[in-house]
Amino acid sequence: MHTATVRADNDAADARRGIRSCLHTGPTRGLAPGFAQANLVVLPQADALDFLRFCVRNPGLCPLLEVTDTGSPHPHGLAGGADLRTDLPRYRVFRDGRCVDEPTDIRKYWRSDLVAILLGCSFTFEWALASAGLPVAHQDQRKNVPMYVTDRLCVSAGPFHGPMVVSMRPFPQHDIARVTEITARFPAMHGAPVHVGDPSVLGIADLDAPDFGDPLSLGADEVPVFWACGVTPQAVVQNACPSLAIFHAPGHMFITDLSHDSFDCHARATRSRQSGGRP
Amino acid sequence: MHTATVRADNDAADARRGIRSCLHTGPTRGLAPGFAQANLVVLPQADALDFLRFCVRNPGLCPLLEVTDTGSPHPHGLAGGADLRTDLPRYRVFRDGRCVDEPTDIRKYWRSDLVAILLGCSFTFEWALASAGLPVAHQDQRKNVPMYVTDRLCVSAGPFHGPMVVSMRPFPQHDIARVTEITARFPAMHGAPVHVGDPSVLGIADLDAPDFGDPLSLGADEVPVFWACGVTPQAVVQNACPSLAIFHAPGHMFITDLSHDSFDCHARATRSRQSGGRP
Repeated sequence: MHTATVRADNDAADARRGIRSCLHTGPTRGLAPGFAQANLVVLPQADALDFLRFCVRNPGLCPLLEVTDTGSPHPHGLAGGADLRTDLPRYRVFRDGRCVDEPTDIRKYWRSDLVAILLGCSFTFEWALASAGLPVAHQDQRKNVPMYVTDRLCVSAGPFHGPMVVSMRPFPQHDIARVTEITARFPAMHGAPVHVGDPSVLGIADLDAPDFGDPLSLGADEVPVFWACGVTPQAVVQNACPSLAIFHAPGHMFITDLSHDSFDCHARATRSRQSGGRP
Repeated sequence: MHTATVRADNDAADARRGIRSCLHTGPTRGLAPGFAQANLVVLPQADALDFLRFCVRNPGLCPLLEVTDTGSPHPHGLAGGADLRTDLPRYRVFRDGRCVDEPTDIRKYWRSDLVAILLGCSFTFEWALASAGLPVAHQDQRKNVPMYVTDRLCVSAGPFHGPMVVSMRPFPQHDIARVTEITARFPAMHGAPVHVGDPSVLGIADLDAPDFGDPLSLGADEVPVFWACGVTPQAVVQNACPSLAIFHAPGHMFITDLSHDSFDCHARATRSRQSGGRP
């Protein structure tokens, strides 16, 4: 259904070509600015059904965008002609729960029983916030978003279980209503915040000591806002110790052919009203 | 994540008890009015992964609410203590693509390799429309919603493929903007319309001859509005001829413990702003 805006040639395809030919090996933030990016999880088919259950049971943490056919590295619904073995700048390969490689392509690890799962990424709602004049602090400060392991458990599925990880972005109190309403329009990209304010409600003892990413200083009028974070599925899969698991390296995402606003529930409604639209 | 509003005892649990003890064997519309209902698809595990791929690739048609553990008839995330073998008023059992039974419980068909998939249902957005003073015509006219097989193909997955089926509800032209905006807030319940106006755009030749349900007369100022319809996955699964498939009988849905508005992206955002919320 997301295929509505797939085009054969665009900035996203250009960016993937650059990545495929190793012209770009760094993080993908800022590449093909109008296009949504995605988290990658690759698992043997034997583990895929339980992992999909985990995603369905935790939709804010693991919003499902695409699941490839078994053995196929081609996410047809998200990007024409893309190859998930070569089109991300860097990967992390885990065997039995331990990281064994951080290659720039995974052709030598690919097998006929692998399934690739692509999950929504917060870049899209950050783009929507910035477009509305609400830029996120960590970008301005050129830092990684701070992430925290909470005391809330995900809903488990088979071997996949563990705590929810959240990302934090500070906003002035008077912007909180707009921030929540804008991000709520993108349920496939983590959606509305899971919590606003007191970090101890999530079991976070010290905002200055994130578990991943960089600490951010909060202004006097600023409130911490927490979103479900795409690091959660990586942590949960590593805990489950499957024989093989491959992820994008942090920040080195898959760039889709779909525009950010194709994931905006409201924009979709407007399009269907104006033009006949698509599901 | 939808577990936020699950309660041990409520109108939904009462309704399921009445159904389980065969006090209620008819359609579920109007039962436990505040609670969301769901479409049921039961498949052998061997077919489940491809069917989940189909759902992920067609999220408007097949919004995934829950996938049970293999062999388990308990949809823990949607309803505490529920049993999908007994808690729907009527089922349809298919073998190799042919309907072989329409029982009021499926205990004798249940197997240790079965997986139950629950999908969003339009009752929730109809409730939201009615709450906003925009009642749907077929309810007022005590008819079944008219449904049409379109000329648009779903995105296929393995053996699962076929045309999109849509439901149609007429609304006055001046209400279309509100109708689309309200239903867009429920992406897990089919969301925004897929089309507004001229039926021929979807390959529908005659509005008075629906493929399923009852025809509805349109007023002079009324426009037909089309939504992705939960009949689609039933048609697609029947086409694929799995050895066994079980569905709810039309209109005989599963009643969840989750309130309609727990699926409203906006209400969720407001809750997270006010109370700390949940993912």
